[in-house]
Amino acid sequence: MNIKMLIYILGKVLLIEGMLMLLPAVCGLFYSENQVIVYFILAAVYMGAGYLISLKKPGNMTIFIKDGCVATALSWLVLSICGCIPFIITKEIPSFTDAMFETASGFSTTGASILTNVEAMSHTSLMWRSLTHWIGGMGVLVFLLAVVPMTGGSNMNLMRAESPGPSVGKIVPKVRSTAKMLYLIYLVMTVAEIIILFVCGMPFFDSVCSAFGTAGTGGFGVRNDSFASYAPHIQWIVAVFMILFGVNFNFYYYFVTKQVNKAFKMSEIKVYLAVVAIVTGIICFSVRGLYGSFGEAIRHAFFQVSTIITTTGFATTDFDLWPSVAKFLLLGLMILGACASSTGGGIKVSRFQIMFKTIKREINTYIHPRTVKQIQVDGKKVDTDVEHSVALYFFIYLLVFTTSMFIVSFEGHDLVTIFSSVAATLNNIGPGLSLVGPTQNYSFFSDLSKWVFIFDMLAGRLELLPIIVFLNPSTYKGIVKKAASKIPG
Amino acid sequence: MNIKMLIYILGKVLLIEGMLMLLPAVCGLFYSENQVIVYFILAAVYMGAGYLISLKKPGNMTIFIKDGCVATALSWLVLSICGCIPFIITKEIPSFTDAMFETASGFSTTGASILTNVEAMSHTSLMWRSLTHWIGGMGVLVFLLAVVPMTGGSNMNLMRAESPGPSVGKIVPKVRSTAKMLYLIYLVMTVAEIIILFVCGMPFFDSVCSAFGTAGTGGFGVRNDSFASYAPHIQWIVAVFMILFGVNFNFYYYFVTKQVNKAFKMSEIKVYLAVVAIVTGIICFSVRGLYGSFGEAIRHAFFQVSTIITTTGFATTDFDLWPSVAKFLLLGLMILGACASSTGGGIKVSRFQIMFKTIKREINTYIHPRTVKQIQVDGKKVDTDVEHSVALYFFIYLLVFTTSMFIVSFEGHDLVTIFSSVAATLNNIGPGLSLVGPTQNYSFFSDLSKWVFIFDMLAGRLELLPIIVFLNPSTYKGIVKKAASKIPG
Repeated sequence: MNIKMLIYILGKVLLIEGMLMLLPAVCGLFYSENQVIVYFILAAVYMGAGYLISLKKPGNMTIFIKDGCVATALSWLVLSICGCIPFIITKEIPSFTDAMFETASGFSTTGASILTNVEAMSHTSLMWRSLTHWIGGMGVLVFLLAVVPMTGGSNMNLMRAESPGPSVGKIVPKVRSTAKMLYLIYLVMTVAEIIILFVCGMPFFDSVCSAFGTAGTGGFGVRNDSFASYAPHIQWIVAVFMILFGVNFNFYYYFVTKQVNKAFKMSEIKVYLAVVAIVTGIICFSVRGLYGSFGEAIRHAFFQVSTIITTTGFATTDFDLWPSVAKFLLLGLMILGACASSTGGGIKVSRFQIMFKTIKREINTYIHPRTVKQIQVDGKKVDTDVEHSVALYFFIYLLVFTTSMFIVSFEGHDLVTIFSSVAATLNNIGPGLSLVGPTQNYSFFSDLSKWVFIFDMLAGRLELLPIIVFLNPSTYKGIVKKAASKIPG
Repeated sequence: MNIKMLIYILGKVLLIEGMLMLLPAVCGLFYSENQVIVYFILAAVYMGAGYLISLKKPGNMTIFIKDGCVATALSWLVLSICGCIPFIITKEIPSFTDAMFETASGFSTTGASILTNVEAMSHTSLMWRSLTHWIGGMGVLVFLLAVVPMTGGSNMNLMRAESPGPSVGKIVPKVRSTAKMLYLIYLVMTVAEIIILFVCGMPFFDSVCSAFGTAGTGGFGVRNDSFASYAPHIQWIVAVFMILFGVNFNFYYYFVTKQVNKAFKMSEIKVYLAVVAIVTGIICFSVRGLYGSFGEAIRHAFFQVSTIITTTGFATTDFDLWPSVAKFLLLGLMILGACASSTGGGIKVSRFQIMFKTIKREINTYIHPRTVKQIQVDGKKVDTDVEHSVALYFFIYLLVFTTSMFIVSFEGHDLVTIFSSVAATLNNIGPGLSLVGPTQNYSFFSDLSKWVFIFDMLAGRLELLPIIVFLNPSTYKGIVKKAASKIPG
């Protein structure tokens, strides 16, 4: 394991976090809030420490896949721990567990909150809270890659560990320029949303925070009722942007690089949009009696479908009061999630595509034993490696899901609360059903359960494997032995 | 597809069903019940028709795996349809859907009932109802194999389609003698239970029906409160027998054939017993406050764990009133199920073993890319084929599970009812939670939902694949072409 490189990466991550903290600090100046001092000091400390730690560039910049996992897991831990300190110091979230929950929820783009009164928070902290979504959405290491040059495979190993979805089509060998391009697209779309929301009458502060929450598919709002009290047209705009941020970013990448035909061939996006349309239709039909007009029903249906399938977690209505079909479908969407390589969470549409194709292939092999076919997605053959990793992902997912439910079940809440709280955190959604419904929050859970959720949120955002590798003792076998002997040619 | 052979098998199945129907008929004579006539006439009709249909032995007795699946699916359909006729004619269950539900529930060893008052049924029909469990437990085709000689691979293809669990260790090449041996063990254990229960003070009729329900891990009782009103020592005996019938029958086979060391090496049984012990412990602890004494708490905990992990479905207490941990663990056991090659349902312990080993192997391959290892169970290497089929099984399972939930959710019941009713039928358990809890029944569901459950019960008993192959149009491709050309050497 390349420990020097690990430390270097962590230093850079800290440096970046410090720089990012300047944004809420500056924002707070406008509102003349006292919390500003805390943010400025912490930003300075983080930048200083990060700069010093990453001062010495390691001679060997090679990172193997396992080092990539450890680097990613550690970076996200550092991000969350350092990110929660201002909440504690400003006493806006005095408990360490709660502050960690809120920050991990932010960076992991979950949006589950332990706050009972969001509107009592300072603008500074609200901005920081929403900014964590934005950072978490595209990933801090992808950002790092865009800035720091590394040797060939290392970039891929870092990016693979942090980016969501099975890598069916690796878009370019030039990871660094891809990372830059991705962040550029991300930035442009975010700014576009801010401008549109502001022009359409949303207060500027709300526009920025909402855009951060949408872009990262996070879900932290700045009002206690999330999006229920915003005007209908604002709700429509946000719903559309949520869908856009749930699209596989390769689509935009192809678009920007003028490979439009490739962009429109992506079957994942077609499936994703089809699911959105069909489920919105069914839900709209099933809740038609609950709202005054068809327009209102379709708006609430579309907004809730968008927010759940993209795992954002905003809400315009209390969907916990919806009929069973609607609730069941939303639970399904929670687990399905958005497209791979989007900022959304969940299992991802493409994994389900590969799963379905595997089922079909295996059944056919069973019926006609002599035909052996390789699975294809978008005309490209899917490696057996990818197939394996998808199956593995499902298995680990089930394992983490049931273990979490088991621990949380000791608190004695109803089964829907237990199931949906785990689903909503592991898939980075935020609100669930019953006691964690959209009008509720996570403050009533015990500290133990909250740590389970913190684990689930981070594990879900990093798609399990990096965290599993990070926690697996076998990762660190022979660390000392190898450190001495492994000098790459 | 060997259609002549299919018809021959169906004829034999009908013949066997007719013969078995004589048992409740004779039983009814003792109670001088009018229903007896119906059963005698139907038995005669089935035996006559079955005899005629299977009179001409087909020249080509070869069955390919896909034919095996079709034969199995059709046999179980014929069994269920013909088996439900007496309930309709005697007007004890006048609706066809309800009668089919009850019979499919019987043969699939589920034990879910639409009866609101079991005690109002005639002894004749109750005996038939319990007998369906016994037949379903070991399987009618396995019985057929024990009786009818077939060519080499054909037996395997039939037995593989009907027997539960991944075939990790195929015990013998001589399928016929294995089938005979399995049925002998099954019969001896059932008789042993009848005698022990009777000697310990249970009425003879109850002893027979309970033993049938235990042996098949079915769950139909003859009292409205299932096992709650039987004496504690009776409950203990039944609980122990449930555990015994949930054990992989290869264990008994090894025992009988004096390969004791092989028997005690079976890791699946160790895991199974460990799970029973641990979960009983946790549940006993969590429900200790609900019962008068520790003895009572441990009895109810052990009975309920036994009944659920073996997917039997008897009950001594209303576990729907238990705390969340206990309910969650029971839900987990429902899905886990018993050992492969037992009479129990569920996903099976060995599939989870293989899944865990796959996860472990894949993670290790991820961390140390150069080591490629094959999975081993009980010292034997697991074929990649078996690994694939296990992954496939999990995927199809999830698919059937969610599709069923989706359809049932239209009725608007609470999510726990929806989830647990599907879990309880697909895993062949019987009682679930909430509206389908142990003190409830399935009568309130719509006909559509009942047919979903009928499908789930049969699909669950046959472990999905045969039913999927049976329903897959590609199975019947080129039936005419092949029928002419395919004459095996």
